[in-house]
Amino acid sequence: MTLLVHLGGIDEQEWADAFQAKMPDLKIVTSSDAFDPAEIKYLYVWKPRDDVFDGLDNLEAIFSLGAGVDPILKHPHLPKNVPITRFVDETLTQCMSDYVIANVTMHHRELTHYRHEQRQHFWTQYYPAPATDIAVGVMGLGQLGLDAAQKLTMLGYQVNGWSRRPKEIEGVTSFSGDAGFDQFLAATDILVNLLPLTSDTRDILNRRTFEKLRRDVMPHGPVMINAARGGHQDEDDVVACLNDGTLGAASLDVFKTEPLPKDSPLWDLDNCYITPHIAAISSFEGGVELVARQIESYERDGTLQHVVDPAQGY
Amino acid sequence: MTLLVHLGGIDEQEWADAFQAKMPDLKIVTSSDAFDPAEIKYLYVWKPRDDVFDGLDNLEAIFSLGAGVDPILKHPHLPKNVPITRFVDETLTQCMSDYVIANVTMHHRELTHYRHEQRQHFWTQYYPAPATDIAVGVMGLGQLGLDAAQKLTMLGYQVNGWSRRPKEIEGVTSFSGDAGFDQFLAATDILVNLLPLTSDTRDILNRRTFEKLRRDVMPHGPVMINAARGGHQDEDDVVACLNDGTLGAASLDVFKTEPLPKDSPLWDLDNCYITPHIAAISSFEGGVELVARQIESYERDGTLQHVVDPAQGY
Ligand SMILES: NC(=O)c1ccc[n+]([C@@H]2O[C@H](COP(=O)([O-])OP(=O)(O)OC[C@H]3O[C@@H](n4cnc5c(N)ncnc54)[C@H](OP(=O)(O)O)[C@@H]3O)[C@@H](O)[C@H]2O)c1
Ligand SMILES: NC(=O)c1ccc[n+]([C@@H]2O[C@H](COP(=O)([O-])OP(=O)(O)OC[C@H]3O[C@@H](n4cnc5c(N)ncnc54)[C@H](OP(=O)(O)O)[C@@H]3O)[C@@H](O)[C@H]2O)c1
Repeated sequence: MTLLVHLGGIDEQEWADAFQAKMPDLKIVTSSDAFDPAEIKYLYVWKPRDDVFDGLDNLEAIFSLGAGVDPILKHPHLPKNVPITRFVDETLTQCMSDYVIANVTMHHRELTHYRHEQRQHFWTQYYPAPATDIAVGVMGLGQLGLDAAQKLTMLGYQVNGWSRRPKEIEGVTSFSGDAGFDQFLAATDILVNLLPLTSDTRDILNRRTFEKLRRDVMPHGPVMINAARGGHQDEDDVVACLNDGTLGAASLDVFKTEPLPKDSPLWDLDNCYITPHIAAISSFEGGVELVARQIESYERDGTLQHVVDPAQGY
Repeated sequence: MTLLVHLGGIDEQEWADAFQAKMPDLKIVTSSDAFDPAEIKYLYVWKPRDDVFDGLDNLEAIFSLGAGVDPILKHPHLPKNVPITRFVDETLTQCMSDYVIANVTMHHRELTHYRHEQRQHFWTQYYPAPATDIAVGVMGLGQLGLDAAQKLTMLGYQVNGWSRRPKEIEGVTSFSGDAGFDQFLAATDILVNLLPLTSDTRDILNRRTFEKLRRDVMPHGPVMINAARGGHQDEDDVVACLNDGTLGAASLDVFKTEPLPKDSPLWDLDNCYITPHIAAISSFEGGVELVARQIESYERDGTLQHVVDPAQGY
């Protein structure tokens, strides 16, 4: 019974040491150690290399370091019928909501507008509408989307939520499935993407989507905030829509290629707010706790939390 | 029984018309109408001119258009024993909290840092701490401060509050009076001022205050946000402290002289975020509603809401 730590690029030894301190009786190896693949029962993984699953014939559970499992699910040699669990952690959720609230309120309160005015020593009084006049639409109402939606509600925003299955969340107007998408967009001034990346959601942030957003509330046009995956956005469409006013502004934390290539036109768009995939990071402490809990529970009665449905892709 | 609308500069006729529509039986005059001062029972006032009270011998109540009554209380001819009521309104409170949340989260999430990085096409991952690690200290826990403090709590921030009298507010650590001020500051990373301007609070935002703030949490030093009155801040100290790092940054919506003079050094400080006194405006609808309610209540049983204590200055 061995846990293999395979984190393509991230310091594996640091994690292995922390796991060992937490679980003294467990054998733990990193991908650079010599080990017999047949002894691996658990895999803690991020950015899996091509050969990661080779010989892991006795693997019983895969723990993802990321909240999104898209890089694991698309692996060509992913073993079938081995459960995969996602990263879920309070601090990760807190940080994502921090990012979302900061960006929604920045656009709403037009901090950049005033910054431009300040540079010119202009004193022109202009009053942003109260949050109660503005509808934020949250795509994805899972661990992350739910928390962000609830916090936006508490701040006074009108909140629309879009998910696969309908939801009942106090203060949140629920829209679901393909059938509810257009209505959801038509009632939304600021769009926040917190979906997982699946075959259904790839490139969902495109011109057709942006054109359906409500146009008469935000003074410079609707706003899009993407903190989920770069694969969700058609970047040519984003650039074109930011240029032609279909979008008033965007905040992007994720990109098709990361780091964002030096020559991407997104860098120089004044109404595009770029952060380098830092909205929320899986915390070290949270990860150690979570994996220890999962292994303890699995050893006790064979149960695991936050198991992914590979058919749905999340 | 006449209501005099006196708003030094603001369109009085627009207000008078709205009051008339709401209260058809009341006689209403503006400061440019001809009227007998002895007939004035109620005064709706903002930026009072020197002669505003001349001959108002039968005045029974003064309604302030502003949430802060400092311009009225300092009037040299203010009649004694005439009750003064403040402006209190849901939309005003909502907008102030919108401003506070936008500015707290902007500083916390370092939007400007990433903006600088973006301009240079830099991709350097740096992760702001979760809100739960950051303490926001709210000075003033009245209509405005209480709402902002509660919303900050709901977002996960540690919240300290400072008021004249101790308070019990869920999730908010209460500090009060002069005796509690230093402790309040020592536990605060982001300071938000929502005090009324009184002889006790004038120039309270000065170097001695800033030096007592907690220095080890915000990466560039503590932050100060002033959305109450310019009279609260010693502007020379603010400039010096922003320059020497005693303050990491400031957001200022109010200034000693407004509009902020063209040659103020505040304009060009990169870590100073200036808005032109637009954090929250008294709404027209809210004002009409409030004054109608006050007059109705006063006519019925002589009671008024939100009455100011001139001895305390708020
Ligand atoms: N930028 C960053 O730093 C960062 C950090 C962490 C995570 N992320 C991203 O955030 C994503 C979301 O994480 P999470 O933990 O909140 O995921 P989650 O708990 O699995 O929630 C996913 C949500 O999306 C909805 N959904 C999935 N497919 C859909 C579809 N086709 N149509 C409509 N709704 C659909 C689900 O609907 P149902 O509720 O009906 O199932 C669910 O509400 C992750 O997958 C990851 O890519 C980014
Ligand atoms: N920038 C803008 O657009 C804008 C818009 C509206 C208002 N404002 C400003 O915001 C101010 C606050 O408005 P508000 O409606 O919240 O006022 P409020 O309801 O009267 O509340 C005042 C608060 O300040 C506290 N306080 C007063 N003097 C104090 C002292 N010496 N030491 C400690 N605490 C003291 C009071 O303590 P107790 O609770 O113990 O009495 C109370 O909690 C207004 O006066 C106005 O100047 C600015």
